[in-house]
Amino acid sequence: MKIYIAGSAVTKFGELWDTSSQELGLEAMSSALRDSGLKTTNLQALFVGNMLSGILSGQEHQGPLYAELLNSSLPSFHIEGACASGGLAVHNAINSLLSGRYQTVMVLGVEKMTDYSSELVSQALMAAGSESERDAGATFPGLYALLARSHMAKFGTTERELAAVSVKNHYHASLNPNAQFRHPISIDQVMASGYVADPLKLLDCSPISDGAAAVILTTKRIPSATEIIASSVASDSLDLASRANLYSLKATQLAAVAAFSQAGLKPKDISVAEVHDCFSIAEILALEDLGFFSPGKAAAAVANNQLTLGSSTNLVVNPSGGLKGCGHPVGATGIKQIVELNHQLKGSSGTRQVKPARYGLTHNVGGSGATAVIHILKAHD
Amino acid sequence: MKIYIAGSAVTKFGELWDTSSQELGLEAMSSALRDSGLKTTNLQALFVGNMLSGILSGQEHQGPLYAELLNSSLPSFHIEGACASGGLAVHNAINSLLSGRYQTVMVLGVEKMTDYSSELVSQALMAAGSESERDAGATFPGLYALLARSHMAKFGTTERELAAVSVKNHYHASLNPNAQFRHPISIDQVMASGYVADPLKLLDCSPISDGAAAVILTTKRIPSATEIIASSVASDSLDLASRANLYSLKATQLAAVAAFSQAGLKPKDISVAEVHDCFSIAEILALEDLGFFSPGKAAAAVANNQLTLGSSTNLVVNPSGGLKGCGHPVGATGIKQIVELNHQLKGSSGTRQVKPARYGLTHNVGGSGATAVIHILKAHD
Repeated sequence: MKIYIAGSAVTKFGELWDTSSQELGLEAMSSALRDSGLKTTNLQALFVGNMLSGILSGQEHQGPLYAELLNSSLPSFHIEGACASGGLAVHNAINSLLSGRYQTVMVLGVEKMTDYSSELVSQALMAAGSESERDAGATFPGLYALLARSHMAKFGTTERELAAVSVKNHYHASLNPNAQFRHPISIDQVMASGYVADPLKLLDCSPISDGAAAVILTTKRIPSATEIIASSVASDSLDLASRANLYSLKATQLAAVAAFSQAGLKPKDISVAEVHDCFSIAEILALEDLGFFSPGKAAAAVANNQLTLGSSTNLVVNPSGGLKGCGHPVGATGIKQIVELNHQLKGSSGTRQVKPARYGLTHNVGGSGATAVIHILKAHD
Repeated sequence: MKIYIAGSAVTKFGELWDTSSQELGLEAMSSALRDSGLKTTNLQALFVGNMLSGILSGQEHQGPLYAELLNSSLPSFHIEGACASGGLAVHNAINSLLSGRYQTVMVLGVEKMTDYSSELVSQALMAAGSESERDAGATFPGLYALLARSHMAKFGTTERELAAVSVKNHYHASLNPNAQFRHPISIDQVMASGYVADPLKLLDCSPISDGAAAVILTTKRIPSATEIIASSVASDSLDLASRANLYSLKATQLAAVAAFSQAGLKPKDISVAEVHDCFSIAEILALEDLGFFSPGKAAAAVANNQLTLGSSTNLVVNPSGGLKGCGHPVGATGIKQIVELNHQLKGSSGTRQVKPARYGLTHNVGGSGATAVIHILKAHD
């Protein structure tokens, strides 16, 4: 049984003061339906990826909340896995299709973060981490700064190399009308931005964002549709202190082995990838843990523009602008990645279109690496 | 492909001041593993049903939180659907098995509610309802009181009949060593208890509880194991004000039609059921919406002891004590229902064993009826 992307859509990502989470969700779902040519009555279930609504707005039970916006009594599910909520929702949706129980389902990712103070949001995001990390007063920039320091100590990675991740992703975002940040930045600008958690500076960090993304998945054959040919998930300890090392993420490594095995592919077969760059160091870890580069080799490749649209010969990474440039409404991110690759593999990405590509990969991380979700997509024949 | 229950377990339900949610979760998972004879290495995924941890304790990302307690990098998922979180976790687990992706999975439901003030918990539970209901200051007893008033107006249901639900379920709970309340109560005691939300009195309401439950599901044939032969979900509006009527729950009706169709059975084929009696009226609605009784006929049947252990000739309802007597740690409830029926269908329920039964049904509701999940279980041949 094959999984086809029947339709996909994203809203604008950014500080959307005048739009509610329900309006964002409805916009993404309606646009995905329009893209697919399907109607609500063609859907058999709804999967919603969201992390923060319970904590920030006191609203859980988000399955029926969004099903109601479709005027529907659909079976509906809220899937949560911190910043990997969207990817996990897609994984469960795919399983429900492969089970034969449902034939066509909607997957929505949605998050509204900018209505709350940044202190409150920073605190809420730590719901992805461990109790001991919260008790210690850790924040996510601080945790990823530890990963960065470890990677720098092990491999000699430099702050300028980390900065190159943000420069690449801002350039890509400048070509994406839905991105939160549409201005290119320079290495010098990143280096001159203030430290948030040494060695990570403001421009190493993805922003707080509002936004939604939706995909409609089906087992009904659509000859012109992108397929999802692998879906894998792995876990690791919530607590950084319990990890074997801090210069790689085991969950990504395990999920990558599983995903490439399912697809019968190797990293070199992938031409375009959306990876989880919540911080610049996170993209470096992803590129190594996914097998695109040997440990310690990814940072130089980014800095040498090997993964940049227009310069890359083999692999373009985060053509959407990634979490850094496009924005990171956490529950929506894992689904936005799939929407982006659906367009890239169909050749409908406009000014940020990569060269014709057969395979793409999405990589969505929860917390500081306790969840990793990977999907591999294949262009239609 | 068939779904077998390889093992199951519940913790004690109650005010467990000296036990953390992780301790409860680990106890349920370890006991289920022991019951199954399996090891963690036999598991391929973990599904966690929980509603309130994010809001009450600031801890989300509960998939890897509990996977770590198993010393495992298992794919892990947090499924939320208010008080139906447990049932929805089972539904997604079953789909993942039927997809062929996983062969054996753990489903854990866990909730820790008594560490917080009852005001805070009441407010947190309203995350299952609509924003307009929260803005109006509604609480769940108030919402179910509206359902009760509507049912009384439509069918002449009386407060004494409602009280009979609690009397039955406390009697059953008195036989259940894991139940929160092990003392029988009388109709007069229910009638004399104070109004929480007219016409619902204190003894019409399920308690605030701590507890966990776990089941291990597998597609590997186990001749002596209970099978799950149907799993269905439906949604309705979060908001009572948007419903067509208040004397029935449409989500239950829709899920029931789907479940009986999947199983090829009719309500009369069911000998034992665990239904969602968060309030006494909820059991009456369930019995009618599931098709066990015509509209308006269930209350008299309960009052006439037709559904009570030892008196019933056809159908025993809530032999565990239900949410009222056994307790209602919300994320655990939907899974505890399945654990209870697994024991009933295997004949291992001790002093609260129903007569030999072939089919059982569980019914788990989220909020005031915006989610309903139904499972039908079949005894081994």
